[in-house]
Formats: sequence, structure tokens, C-alpha cells
Amino acid sequence: MHPHLARSLTRWTLALLVSLPLLAQAAEVLPSWNDGASRQAIISFVEAVTEQGGKDFVPPAERIAVFDNDGTLWSEQPMYFQVLFALDEVKRQAPQHPEWKERQPFKAVLEGDRKTLAASGLKGLMEIIIATHTNMSSETFHDNAQRWLATATHPRSHRPYTEMVFQPMLELLAYLRDNGFKTYIVSGGEVAFMRVFAEEVYGIPPEQVIGTTFGSRFEDNGGKLSIQRLPTLAHNDDGPGKPESIDQYIGRRPILAFGNSDGDLQMLQWTMAGNGKRFAGLVHHTDAEREWAYDRQSDVGRLDKALDAAKAQGWVLVDMAREWKRIYPFDQAGKSN
Amino acid sequence: MHPHLARSLTRWTLALLVSLPLLAQAAEVLPSWNDGASRQAIISFVEAVTEQGGKDFVPPAERIAVFDNDGTLWSEQPMYFQVLFALDEVKRQAPQHPEWKERQPFKAVLEGDRKTLAASGLKGLMEIIIATHTNMSSETFHDNAQRWLATATHPRSHRPYTEMVFQPMLELLAYLRDNGFKTYIVSGGEVAFMRVFAEEVYGIPPEQVIGTTFGSRFEDNGGKLSIQRLPTLAHNDDGPGKPESIDQYIGRRPILAFGNSDGDLQMLQWTMAGNGKRFAGLVHHTDAEREWAYDRQSDVGRLDKALDAAKAQGWVLVDMAREWKRIYPFDQAGKSN
Repeated sequence: MHPHLARSLTRWTLALLVSLPLLAQAAEVLPSWNDGASRQAIISFVEAVTEQGGKDFVPPAERIAVFDNDGTLWSEQPMYFQVLFALDEVKRQAPQHPEWKERQPFKAVLEGDRKTLAASGLKGLMEIIIATHTNMSSETFHDNAQRWLATATHPRSHRPYTEMVFQPMLELLAYLRDNGFKTYIVSGGEVAFMRVFAEEVYGIPPEQVIGTTFGSRFEDNGGKLSIQRLPTLAHNDDGPGKPESIDQYIGRRPILAFGNSDGDLQMLQWTMAGNGKRFAGLVHHTDAEREWAYDRQSDVGRLDKALDAAKAQGWVLVDMAREWKRIYPFDQAGKSN
Repeated sequence: MHPHLARSLTRWTLALLVSLPLLAQAAEVLPSWNDGASRQAIISFVEAVTEQGGKDFVPPAERIAVFDNDGTLWSEQPMYFQVLFALDEVKRQAPQHPEWKERQPFKAVLEGDRKTLAASGLKGLMEIIIATHTNMSSETFHDNAQRWLATATHPRSHRPYTEMVFQPMLELLAYLRDNGFKTYIVSGGEVAFMRVFAEEVYGIPPEQVIGTTFGSRFEDNGGKLSIQRLPTLAHNDDGPGKPESIDQYIGRRPILAFGNSDGDLQMLQWTMAGNGKRFAGLVHHTDAEREWAYDRQSDVGRLDKALDAAKAQGWVLVDMAREWKRIYPFDQAGKSN
């Protein structure tokens, strides 16, 4: 080989070796998002707040990002997954509660009587949640939730619930963390349930999961210590409860918030009302084919007032059907519009 | 120079260059601690849980360390500093509360009538705390606390309260973080007060400060959003309240806990009751000359039951007078025993 050619080749190879990882990295950002308005808004926000010396720079310690869970990070149809857990727990725990055979709404659950169950309404549902989530130690509850999550499957996909998470949102969480953000869940779901899987599934450690809480009591039973879960609602982490818990747990205002329903409205408002550059996003369930399509009329995850607010305020509205190439990690076929 | 000698010198120089940083690092660990039982116990614990492949190894995510604040990270005499803040706030806010001139225990505070104030007891104290800490937005409270911390000085040292922190404990916090620990405050103090200075003074961000909380309410006043602090006690983060809040906020059990009083007993018990290697420490106030000396008989920071527990369980008891070379960062003269 001519020495000149050899030198050129070497130089070319070196340039390739240097640039390839950069190209790969650029291509890797949010790969399951079509390159539409939402993806561009996310990337432009992150680049602005991380640009050292830029006018919108935010120090890493203040890069707090909060996410709703149900309908934002995983599906919530045909019903909140935690409610499905509670219903399954009634069946599993029934042998220890012979009285449930005769007592509503437990009787309806055991007999698969959906009509009576639905008629018991929110009050009946809370009775079922309280019965299956409290009056036990935090360790027992953890084990119960873990067992269910490891074995139960979704009625439509027949997959574990922890696989019904949104691939594009997993990528968003990772992208934010790669850019120095601390990612939190702030959800109406009960906190201990989410903590069982949030670290493995979302990469969010227990201490960054905030949710609805029951009362608790430290017990010293002859040297055997436990935290007992009490049948009293301590905090309902929905609507205005979200900025309240953000203030209580985090003690600073997020700069990015993502939700999908009216229960997230105040969290998004609170996030946007701070100084400096901020980001509010809503997942809009528009995909009846691959996921579900619902908004203003839905009982689960109703998106009505927050949809108006998003349009009025120019918040990012993610059109799931149009903007997401994949919904779930197990979706193999990509979709590009 | 003979080539052999040159090689030897080079080798020797290289060895020195390699070993110097290690030596420097070793010398820097906990420099304000005399090399006694407590320092050795801390280092041996940290080395054990961080030794990759060792039998006591703990993954970084589970290296949770919790610290009481009053009497553990800073002084608490002649009275909890937050109580001194509340008393000063009564005086500062008095013009807006003309009724306080005639109403106890406020009248006693304004007139410097210590006897009447003391007679009002815990009930009177709570009234003063509630009046100065609630019925305002979280932002107003933050500003009030920040102003006081920036201007008020301790009656004995005449220094800002944020300088009355324990230099050896600052070093311990940094040493733990250098070894992959996440450091938390879990204190009977009110959480928003501590969050004003914890990041700057201790390197502990707001979201890792847990404490006593008041109720709160999100308010939308014609588009002006705020978190209002309500005059109701939501959680008393003392005694059994500490493991309760650890479970609620962190969601996993610490592997290291440090306190100084009976209010920390359950937190230490809860920490030690987990599996694997664990560490419980108590700061014992034995230094009447440089700080204060008190334990079983003290009204502030009483150490009685927890002292018995420490002795019975072999927890680390830090003898401040004997084991700490310096108390405060402003102490120049080192002390070695």
C-alpha cells in the first residue's frame, strides 16, 4: 500500500471511530418517539436547561422531574392496575375472612358480580382497598404486592402488568437522568405498591416514589419491630394533593412535570408557575388499536380540564397514536408516521 | 547517572506518585476525630459494607444513612434553635398582632417574662410554634426562616446558628457520601425550617430532609398558586414517629443511624433490626467546656433509655470530650487525647 493511502485510511478510520459513538448517541435519544412536536419540545427543553452558561441553565440539583404513574408511565385500562390487585387480593385472602362471603362489596367480588360491585361505587372500592392494603405490616404488604406483580397478568395482553409500561416514557426517564435530572413518581396510587416495582421497571428508587398514603404505626411487639399499616387515609395524592406532597416530600418545585389526566392538573400548574424555563406534558390516549383511546368522558383517567389547560397554555400534548413508534417494550413492530 | 540508578529512581518516584494520593486520602478521613473506638468503628463499618465481593457488601442504592439534627449535627442548648427562632419571630411579628400584648404566652415572650413562659409548658410552646410557623405560604415561611438564620446569633458564641454545627459530623456526612451513601436528616425539627440551611451547611438537599410536618393546602387564588401551611400538626417526627417517617418517605430501612437522645431510640432500633451489617451511633454530650454536658437529667435532648440501650446493645457511643478534636468549624485549636 502506498504510504499516503495508508495514512489516509488510518486517518479516516480514526475519524470514524471517534464519530461513531457520537452518531450512535444522537440516534439513541428517544428512539421510540417519532420526530414530531413532542420529541422536539422535550429535546429543546433539556438542551436549554443543561447548557452551561446559557440563559436557561438550571443547576443539576434543581433538575427535578415529576411523573404521574397510571396512564402516564403504564396503562390504566380497563381499570387502575392497583384496583385489579385489590380485587385479586380479596379472592386470595378470602379463606382468612369467612365473613366476606356474606358481606358486600366483598361478596360481589368473590361471586364475580360486577353489577353489585359497580353499584357499591367509590365507597365500596375504598372498603376493598382498605381491607387489602392495611391492618398488616409494611413487610407483609410488600410481599403481597410483589407476589401479585410477579404472577398476575393483564386481561388483554396476558402479560405481567409491569410489562404494560410505555417504552417512550422509559426512554424519556433515562434521557432526563442522563442529563442530570432526578426523576420522581407523584401518583394517586398507593406509595408502597408502586415502590415494589418502580426501581426495577422505571429506574426510580423507593425514596423517589410519592403517592397516596395510609396512616402507620411503629410497633414493638416484645422486641419484634414492625411498621403497621393503619386503615386510615393519611394523604390522597390526587389533584391538589400532588403539589402538596411535592412540597412536603421534595421541598422544591419541579421544572418538568408529566401527567395524563385531570388529577395531574394542579401538579402541572404548580410546576409551570415557577421562575425560569419549565416543561409540562400530557400523555393523550389516542390509540384505540395499540393501547386505548379515551379522554373527556372516561371514568378512569379522565382528561378534560387539563386538556383545556394544555391547549390554552401551550403545554406539550403527546398524541400517542401519532407520536409513539412503540407503546410497550414487547411491541416489536415500529410505527412511523 | 548510572542507568541502573536512574531506573531505580524512576521506579521509586513512580511508586511515590502512586502511593501519595492514597496516603493523603487515608490521612484525610475524619480528621477531627481522635483515633479512638468511635472513629475506628465508623471506618471499619464503611469499609465492610463497601468491599466489593465482601460478605458484608451493601449495594450503593441501599446505603441509606439517617441522622437526627438537634444535638447530633448541631448544638441544641440552651434550647432547640428552632424554638429560639419562634421566640424571635413573635417579637418581629408583634406589630401585626397587637392582641399578643395581652395574650399569654405571647405577652410573656414580648416582656421577656421567662417564668410565665416556662409555666405555659409544652402547650404554650406549641401555641408559639404554630403562630410563627403556620397560616402563611411555604414561600413566606422560607423567607422568614432564611432571614433569621442569616442574622440571628447564638447567645453564647455570638455566631450564626449555622456555624454551631459539629465539624466531626460534617466530616462523617462527607465520608459516607464519598462511599456511596445517601445521607438523610430525620429530625423532630420542623422540616421546612431545616431545609432552608441543610443543603448549604450539611450538603443534604431538601428532598433528603425529613421532619415534623404541619398540614398543608394547595391554593389557587385567582391564578396565584401557593402552598398554605395549616395550623394542624400532621406528623410528630420524634420517637416512634422516626421509623414511621423513614418508612413513609424513604421506603427502605437505613443501614446506619446516628442520634443523641431518647427521641432517636426507635430510629436506632429500627435500623439495627434489619438484616446484614448495621451501625447505630449516639453523640454523647460530655463536654461542658467546649459545648455542653448533659444526658439523663436534661429537659432538652434527654439521653437516658437510649443510653442504656447503647450500652446493652454495643452501639457506638461518641464521647464528645474525648473523641472530638474540634467541635465547631470555627474552633481553631485541635485537641488530642
